[in-house]
This record gives sequence, structure tokens and C-alpha cells, in this order.
Amino acid sequence: MAEISLRRAKSIIRATLAEGREMDLKPLSVIVLDAGGHVKAFEREDGASPGRFAIAHGKAYGAVMLGMSGGAQMARAEQQAYFMAAVNGVFGGQVIPVPGGILVKDKKGDVIGAVGITGDTSDNDAIAGMAGIESVGLTGDA
Amino acid sequence: MAEISLRRAKSIIRATLAEGREMDLKPLSVIVLDAGGHVKAFEREDGASPGRFAIAHGKAYGAVMLGMSGGAQMARAEQQAYFMAAVNGVFGGQVIPVPGGILVKDKKGDVIGAVGITGDTSDNDAIAGMAGIESVGLTGDA
Amino acid sequence: MAEISLRRAKSIIRATLAEGREMDLKPLSVIVLDAGGHVKAFEREDGASPGRFAIAHGKAYGAVMLGMSGGAQMARAEQQAYFMAAVNGVFGGQVIPVPGGILVKDKKGDVIGAVGITGDTSDNDAIAGMAGIESVGLTGDA
Amino acid sequence: MAEISLRRAKSIIRATLAEGREMDLKPLSVIVLDAGGHVKAFEREDGASPGRFAIAHGKAYGAVMLGMSGGAQMARAEQQAYFMAAVNGVFGGQVIPVPGGILVKDKKGDVIGAVGITGDTSDNDAIAGMAGIESVGLTGDA
Repeated sequence: MAEISLRRAKSIIRATLAEGREMDLKPLSVIVLDAGGHVKAFEREDGASPGRFAIAHGKAYGAVMLGMSGGAQMARAEQQAYFMAAVNGVFGGQVIPVPGGILVKDKKGDVIGAVGITGDTSDNDAIAGMAGIESVGLTGDA
Repeated sequence: MAEISLRRAKSIIRATLAEGREMDLKPLSVIVLDAGGHVKAFEREDGASPGRFAIAHGKAYGAVMLGMSGGAQMARAEQQAYFMAAVNGVFGGQVIPVPGGILVKDKKGDVIGAVGITGDTSDNDAIAGMAGIESVGLTGDA
Repeated sequence: MAEISLRRAKSIIRATLAEGREMDLKPLSVIVLDAGGHVKAFEREDGASPGRFAIAHGKAYGAVMLGMSGGAQMARAEQQAYFMAAVNGVFGGQVIPVPGGILVKDKKGDVIGAVGITGDTSDNDAIAGMAGIESVGLTGDA
Repeated sequence: MAEISLRRAKSIIRATLAEGREMDLKPLSVIVLDAGGHVKAFEREDGASPGRFAIAHGKAYGAVMLGMSGGAQMARAEQQAYFMAAVNGVFGGQVIPVPGGILVKDKKGDVIGAVGITGDTSDNDAIAGMAGIESVGLTGDA
């Protein structure tokens, strides 16, 4: 499968943060994971709280591991809370099922990684991330 | 950013416990964490139960790592329970999202640490802690 | 059994830190646990690294739980490393078996708690702690 | 104490990776933590194995939490293996005590964060990281 390169990962992060500034959001933190769920790149803006790495990671990690966007996970959590709680259990508490966890797909529709954004409201996090992903010609599933 | 000194941390604890005596609260336990979420000082009053360190720590730790006061975390937990449960997961179960976890800010508005108070009702814990923080000229966000 | 009061715990810490200044040691961190191994009080001097709470706790906790001073634990670790490693395992990795973990005993010889000191060399940590304990009329087993 | 900015963190990483290319090292992964041990930025070069985030993090995290460079931790591990193993325990297995974990200090000598590098030999990792840190006018303690 196509790998997400470090160059592309950094471009996604740069564009996401630029969108955040454009939207006048609170300081954002953005992570990019590869298709195996492993950290490729991360940046936490000045002024973001110390725990934002963990939250960004949780959003992206759940998306990759389940093949479900943050929005889809949240819908599931609201319908069947105990299921998402159990899913979180088998993944060692590492999943955060809310918007801001975005699957990244290439032209063929294959998942090549995920982006996790946190810092503002979940919905704004997702908007900024989608802009970042689309800016490099990839497709996001938020 | 300004560090919270040991002297200031102890003054906050002393004043918080004094307020607790003034309000005739149950025995209190008070922790002060620095801006990175690391323990600076702690005192558990005689008669307080053995587990109070963990609870005081959980209140303050969640506040620092998320940049959200205990009151704000509780509001979020009531709106979106699975989100706060997931957040607790990525922080290894160390977050207790209720009043009594207070962000401490300096004159410029920067977070320099957090105070966690437990022992009476959460609301009374928070009142005592705010008195402690204000007594040293700092601002609390409860 | 006699409880170690908050007043006594704070006096031990104060005297330990004063001894550290007297001996011109690096910034110290001092914890006092009660006879059940639960945190009573803690202070981390300015300039001490963020992880010092965990190390001070580990020294005192091993002492209380095993009824063995840090010095005795170290001797055991050097003779039978796998045993102390296993002991650490059953206590969730919370034991640090080196000098600086001091059992505190009252006049009757009963253990009423433990003190953990860290920041300088283990031997100097223990010397400062013994001074702190003896200054309040208690007996230390280092 | 001075915060390490995202801009500076990225510059350190860029310069470290450039040094790695100059030295013809294997693909490197570089993390920057702030003074509280929290992730500020990270990059994993293409071709680096999936687990490199954890190793880079472990090197930098141990350095910050203990206030000891990777080289100093390794020396301690070689003299007193059970001590470093126990230290790893109290930090949840998150400490990797070898060269490549470098404390970052500002002009006043205060620790403002740490850099963790992994991918080639530990010694080469450390050389690349020192070049990265010095390129932004900061001091590294490897």
C-alpha cells in the first residue's frame, strides 16, 4: 500500500495549522499516523496544553485501527456507548471517538494513514484537518 | 513561563487548609502541580482517608493536561460522557473531572500549575482552593 | 498503631531540606508515607527535576511495603537481583531499592511510616533524611 | 523558565535530520519534549521502523524526568542495573537509558526540554542531535 511520506505528513500539518490561524482557532496540535497506526509526525502549537499529544493521538489512532472516522465513531458511541467503551478497552484506553480523527485516503481510496487534530472544538478541529489533507491532494474522511 | 515555587505552593496549601478549618470542612488533602503536571507539594490532613492523594492528584492533573478547570471538565462529562471517559483512558486513568481541580494563572494569564483539593464536597473543595490561590495573589480557574 | 501526624511529617520534611542546604546538596525532594504506605506529605525543591516525586515515592514505598530500609533492599538487590526485580513486579513497578528510603519508628520501635528522599547521591539523600527524622525525636532505619 | 517554542523545536529536528544525511546515517526519528516532558514535535524519516517514536520518546523522557542525559543514565545503568530498572518501573516503562537522549539548556543553563534521536547507533544518534541543538544556539547535554 502507498506509504504516507514524511514530506506529505509535514505538509498536512502545516496546512492544518495555517487553516487554524485563518479560522482564529485556539492553539492546535496535529498528529499524522501511518496506515499501521504509528506516529509519523506531530506538532503542538505554542500555548496548547501539555496533554494535547495524547488527545490528538487518540483521535487518529481510533480512526486507523477501526477504519472509522471520528465522526463515525462518535455516532456509534452515542448509539451504543458500551461498545465504544469496550473497543477502547481492547486498545488499552488509547481511543478517543470524536471528530478530529480523520482517515486519509489516496486517489484509489486506500487508507494511507490518519490525522488527529485537537485544541479547539471537535468540529473546528475536523474542519482545519480536512483543509490540511485536501491541500496536499489527498482525501479525508472525517 | 513562570515556575510555581515551592514557597508559593506551600502558601497555597496552607491557606487552603486554613479556609477549610474556617468553613468547618472535613479533613482536606491539597496538591499543587507545576505547569507540566508534576507534583510540587502535597499535604493530607489528619483524619483524611488514605486514598486522598490519588483523588487530589487526579483533579489537578486533568486540569493541567487539558487546560480545563474541574468545573469545565464536569460540564463536558455531563454533555459527552464517553469523551471524558476516553480522555481518562489516554491519560492512564489519572483524570478526575469534577470541581476541586483548579488551574492557577499568573498576572499575565499564563497557566503556571494546578491545585487539587479533596475531602469535603467537590464544591466546598473548590471554594477552599480558590481562597488558597487568591491568598497568594494568583488567579484560579475553578 | 501510632499515626504519623501531618505536623510531624512536615517537620521531618523541613528538617531534611534544611540538612540538605547545610550539606550543600542538589535540590532535594522529600516524601512522607504513613504506615499503610499512603502519601501524607511531599515537597520538591525548586530546581529539582520533574520526575523526583516518583523516585522519592518509590524509595519510601518499597521500605514500608517490605519493612526493609533502602540500604537493606539494595544489599538484597545486589545479592539476588531477580528477587528484587520480582518484588518490584508484584508492586506494579513502584519500588526503588536504594538508600534514601527510610523506615520511621516511634519510641516503642513500631513502624509509623517511611520517608523517601532523592536529588543528590543516594547516600547523601539518606543522611539528610536521617537528620530530618531524628530532629523530631523519631528513629530512622536507613 | 523559558519554554521551547514549536519553531525552535522544528529547527532542531530539521538540523538533526540534515546532520544525519550529512553523516549518511540510517533513517532517523527525532522528538522534542518540553521541560515538563510533554511532546512538542516529532518526525520519523521515511524508511525508519514503526516503533521509532517510542524509542525516541523513551530516550528524551528519561532525560527530562531525571535531569540526566542519556550518557549519564547509561553509566548509571552499567554501575547499578537494578536502580535504572526500578526507575524505569516508576515511570511506567517509559525510560530508555542510552545515548540519544539529550537535555536542552538555554543560555542561563536551565533545562528547557529534551531531544530524543534514534535510528542509527546510539552514539551517532547523539552526535546528530547535538548538531541539531547547537544549530539553534542552545546547549545540549548528551
